[in-house]
Amino acid sequence: MQSLTIELGSRSYPIFIGEQLLRDGALLTQHLPRGPLLIVTDETVAPLYLDTLLESLEPRTAATLAIPAGEQHKTLQTFGRVIDALVTASIPRDGGLLALGGGVVGDITGFAAATYQRGIAFLQAPTTLLSQVDSAVGGKTGVNHPAGKNLVGAFHQPRAVFCDVATLRTLSDRELRAGLAEVIKYGLIADEAFLRWLETELDRILARDPAALTRAVARSCEIKARIVSHDEREAGERALLNFGHTFGHAIEAATHYSQFLHGEAVALGMWMATEMSARLGWIETAQAQRVRRLLQRAGLPAAATNIGAARAAELMRRDKKVLEGRLRLVLLRGLGAAVVTADYDAKAYQETLVQGFGT
Amino acid sequence: MQSLTIELGSRSYPIFIGEQLLRDGALLTQHLPRGPLLIVTDETVAPLYLDTLLESLEPRTAATLAIPAGEQHKTLQTFGRVIDALVTASIPRDGGLLALGGGVVGDITGFAAATYQRGIAFLQAPTTLLSQVDSAVGGKTGVNHPAGKNLVGAFHQPRAVFCDVATLRTLSDRELRAGLAEVIKYGLIADEAFLRWLETELDRILARDPAALTRAVARSCEIKARIVSHDEREAGERALLNFGHTFGHAIEAATHYSQFLHGEAVALGMWMATEMSARLGWIETAQAQRVRRLLQRAGLPAAATNIGAARAAELMRRDKKVLEGRLRLVLLRGLGAAVVTADYDAKAYQETLVQGFGT
Repeated sequence: MQSLTIELGSRSYPIFIGEQLLRDGALLTQHLPRGPLLIVTDETVAPLYLDTLLESLEPRTAATLAIPAGEQHKTLQTFGRVIDALVTASIPRDGGLLALGGGVVGDITGFAAATYQRGIAFLQAPTTLLSQVDSAVGGKTGVNHPAGKNLVGAFHQPRAVFCDVATLRTLSDRELRAGLAEVIKYGLIADEAFLRWLETELDRILARDPAALTRAVARSCEIKARIVSHDEREAGERALLNFGHTFGHAIEAATHYSQFLHGEAVALGMWMATEMSARLGWIETAQAQRVRRLLQRAGLPAAATNIGAARAAELMRRDKKVLEGRLRLVLLRGLGAAVVTADYDAKAYQETLVQGFGT
Repeated sequence: MQSLTIELGSRSYPIFIGEQLLRDGALLTQHLPRGPLLIVTDETVAPLYLDTLLESLEPRTAATLAIPAGEQHKTLQTFGRVIDALVTASIPRDGGLLALGGGVVGDITGFAAATYQRGIAFLQAPTTLLSQVDSAVGGKTGVNHPAGKNLVGAFHQPRAVFCDVATLRTLSDRELRAGLAEVIKYGLIADEAFLRWLETELDRILARDPAALTRAVARSCEIKARIVSHDEREAGERALLNFGHTFGHAIEAATHYSQFLHGEAVALGMWMATEMSARLGWIETAQAQRVRRLLQRAGLPAAATNIGAARAAELMRRDKKVLEGRLRLVLLRGLGAAVVTADYDAKAYQETLVQGFGT
């Protein structure tokens, strides 16, 4: 097991990463709030891991709620169901919520923990690679609105996060690979040595070797934790985490969030941001090829989509990262060295759009 | 006009109190966010003051939403309507929400401001005496749930509060008197000189003299501000603000929130807490009589209700201020000197319950 601490003053919390943490009753119960607990999971995860978790917590008991699985249920309505369940279980102020599942479960449950009685204790047991390396770190909670993702939410830090890599065995290959896109992102933006390690150990990760997964998740969390600790409210450095996301959001929006998983769209976006960095001469062509090869080996898309450059440019301008008309992008100044900048050659941007999205 | 600042570090904000502030375009616009604004009001207040406010903001424009009036609409559903209106008006992160109305409008709008895009600017123009002296100060926002009041919410400080005492002219006598209960509370818990001033100037306040109302609101806000600045998250001193509320909540719950306005129940509760303080020998009987006389002159109830002592005791135990089985009460050690304590003679408590609620 590895552990690290997210340093946020009085709201600091530990993340534990390892195999079979959901069976580690001593570890889990040590971090529970004094009062009663409601576990929120979804209908996919419940039959796989809920009983295991409940057994580990014994002799303590917990109320449970399984919400429907899927991003389309990340709504104010489902949030209301979690609040109703808190009321039904009579959870008091010194009680808590534990999210067992992927990002949707974590985000809704976290928002309920942020707002029920104006804030109660929150614990997370993420069960997907994406949620282990992304949504479990940083304190962002919320739900979608038909008009936009995560349009309603709050910052609310968990009390502890338990990343059990054993749960990744039941993840589909496609979901695992989509999560891996975010892992590769951490290497690309901040740690070339980690990127090299990923190139070497990729097959072990894809084979779900627990030790390799533990290291991949732990290093990803460390990098995100370092960035988030410096910039909890997303004023500056945290924007580095959006590497690949501005291009990726355009791809997701143009395909109505149905063709690509988030991680797949991010992989495409990272490829485009890498290509653009090479086009600007900020990295070498050989380095860009290395990135593309890694994404391809990970089974992630790294090729043109036919959205059209004009449509993509319009979608990217609409992205919330546009400030005062200047489109800021996260680009590479080297492998493991990303920058946030609006200071780039417009022609290189245009060429990248045409190459990636067609005319 | 008077003004004061709520000192909360980077989240400090000013409160302005005076006559015709809703017509003071220069003051209002100075505190608006850079981006577009949505004004939320209710169907009672809209025809009275919305046009005045919109004219004062010119040449700036604002989107508007009028929600149904009344505590029964302080729900997650109405909150969802505010979010929908923010989306429809395309309010961005640098936009804001302005609440024009009483406590219900302020609490719902504040909760929307706390959570839309994880937090946008919030301004308040409270139009009732209760909201000017209570809910506009302190940063508590939220909505009710069938199982309890303010069960879902967040702490979110406004950017500025504008208490226009001219709006109190359209308040019913009963609403004015209910708000006055909270004003008297501030004198009782923290400022005997203010209490004496209220005794002297009560008739001018009831006649809605603008200067008297300005002073009453300003001093109330000052006292609440001082307490809230010391204890933003309600760990200790802020509990003093609950003077009269633990008895009062029992009265409200037993009468299903239909017989008494909140301020009326608080007045009854303050009378009981004062009686109990005299019974304990902590204040003199003559002082308790002075309090009772002031409440009566203000047209507030200060007499027994027939809930029954046993039922009341049970309701009070359920109150969220019970910690580890000990019922903490706010009692007087003098006029203008309240304390929070669980260290009192149980017999005096029992006798107070019987006197106030019958056997």
